[in-house]
Amino acid sequence: MKILTTIEELRDIRKKINSSIGFVPTMGALHDGHISLIKKAREENKIVIVSIFVNPTQFLPGEDLDAYPRKDEADKKICNMCKVDYLFMPQISSMYTENEIKVKAPNTSYVLEGFSRPGHFDGVLQIVLKLFGLVLPTNAYFGKKDAQQLSLITQMVKDFFLPINIIPCEIVRETDGLALSSRNVYLNKKQREDALLISKSLYAAATLIAKEQRDVEIIKDKIYDIMQKLEVEYVAIVDREFNEVSKIDLNNTIILIVARFGNTRLLDNIWL
Amino acid sequence: MKILTTIEELRDIRKKINSSIGFVPTMGALHDGHISLIKKAREENKIVIVSIFVNPTQFLPGEDLDAYPRKDEADKKICNMCKVDYLFMPQISSMYTENEIKVKAPNTSYVLEGFSRPGHFDGVLQIVLKLFGLVLPTNAYFGKKDAQQLSLITQMVKDFFLPINIIPCEIVRETDGLALSSRNVYLNKKQREDALLISKSLYAAATLIAKEQRDVEIIKDKIYDIMQKLEVEYVAIVDREFNEVSKIDLNNTIILIVARFGNTRLLDNIWL
Repeated sequence: MKILTTIEELRDIRKKINSSIGFVPTMGALHDGHISLIKKAREENKIVIVSIFVNPTQFLPGEDLDAYPRKDEADKKICNMCKVDYLFMPQISSMYTENEIKVKAPNTSYVLEGFSRPGHFDGVLQIVLKLFGLVLPTNAYFGKKDAQQLSLITQMVKDFFLPINIIPCEIVRETDGLALSSRNVYLNKKQREDALLISKSLYAAATLIAKEQRDVEIIKDKIYDIMQKLEVEYVAIVDREFNEVSKIDLNNTIILIVARFGNTRLLDNIWL
Repeated sequence: MKILTTIEELRDIRKKINSSIGFVPTMGALHDGHISLIKKAREENKIVIVSIFVNPTQFLPGEDLDAYPRKDEADKKICNMCKVDYLFMPQISSMYTENEIKVKAPNTSYVLEGFSRPGHFDGVLQIVLKLFGLVLPTNAYFGKKDAQQLSLITQMVKDFFLPINIIPCEIVRETDGLALSSRNVYLNKKQREDALLISKSLYAAATLIAKEQRDVEIIKDKIYDIMQKLEVEYVAIVDREFNEVSKIDLNNTIILIVARFGNTRLLDNIWL
């Protein structure tokens, strides 16, 4: 595996690649969720490129940019073990300049995460577009846990006619059900235990739906009931365009939960 | 020459091209200025692609979107004569959807044209990014007449790390000096005569500068003096980043003029 820290290095290498490229953009602190993306990229492409870049523009003022876990050495080992070809770890100063041309998420995205974190998706789209321009991947891999992010990146590729396939990847969980997240390290023991109620409530919702329940309010009641001791930010049942729905459609529904544990927001969801 | 009217046709053809592509995006009503871009593209690339698309998002409410000259048949002949390989003429409905992810020009661009036409450059950048995504050109050709547009497109390619060379091309003029523009057809006989004062004042400025004059105010006075009977919107002497300068730098100065003739705005400039 070769580690690239400058744009020039990446560009030089990119020019010489004529085969399929699988790209996994990350903010580091890699866990089994990231590893599943990398493995899928490894299976489906000749060349695998992973980027690690804690992107400042997707953090709002007061969010955890400075505290965000950095584990460069462990991450390098993981990428090496996963047979990544190139690991791109650029400096902030090389990725951004002053007075940039910006990417702007549509007003319709200012719901759910877009409502809770206004401007967050602008920053996500900005960095992903930059990385796509540099890496020019064949396939790019994103987890379904950040469902709205995945949806907007898919939309960006369509809107800007980018010649890239976006590959959605399943959520990876701890054996007890907690969805993997780099932010799980923020949880204390009590919070870690309580956090289980999120996936538990999603499983309960799935069980209700398996028993032919289609009424969104009844399903939401069940979820809120299980999570009553938590500080729930939102429970949303939406279609693939993130419009709230009143009835479950087995082919086109996502159930999303965000709960807070102190300053830590945990996201989870299931795609029906 | 093959005419492509759908995105699918363009994509199919693009996939099969492995050689250099010169791209000339236009809004049609082609004149000798466009032809000079196409000729340069023809000289420098294996494949030449021209697009004709009157882009609605770069017109402000009340501007001349509906009146903008359409000359599809003449344009096709011109492209054919210039040995264009592919002429792309898409429908509006295939280029845009509802609630799109947008490109946003920086606040620093809200001077000169950006001040007179707020939002105009957002629309320009949006369509150029889309066309770049579809055509994936090696080289893209833009005239210096739209100096600020050229500067922003060059910036977009840098900011988003697009693997495209932007090739600036010289302004082409009528024999009497008037800079070519698709909007010149809006001028009546009197306006067409008066419009000559624009290039005349630019030549006078160039002559002063050749005689070692470096004082911006003296040069502006000369320009305004020659254009005193015109409705001048602005005269600006700027550096390559479009910051106004107080002293002429022979390697880094652009003199820009915009004058109005009824509803018609004419732009002209010289790059020192």
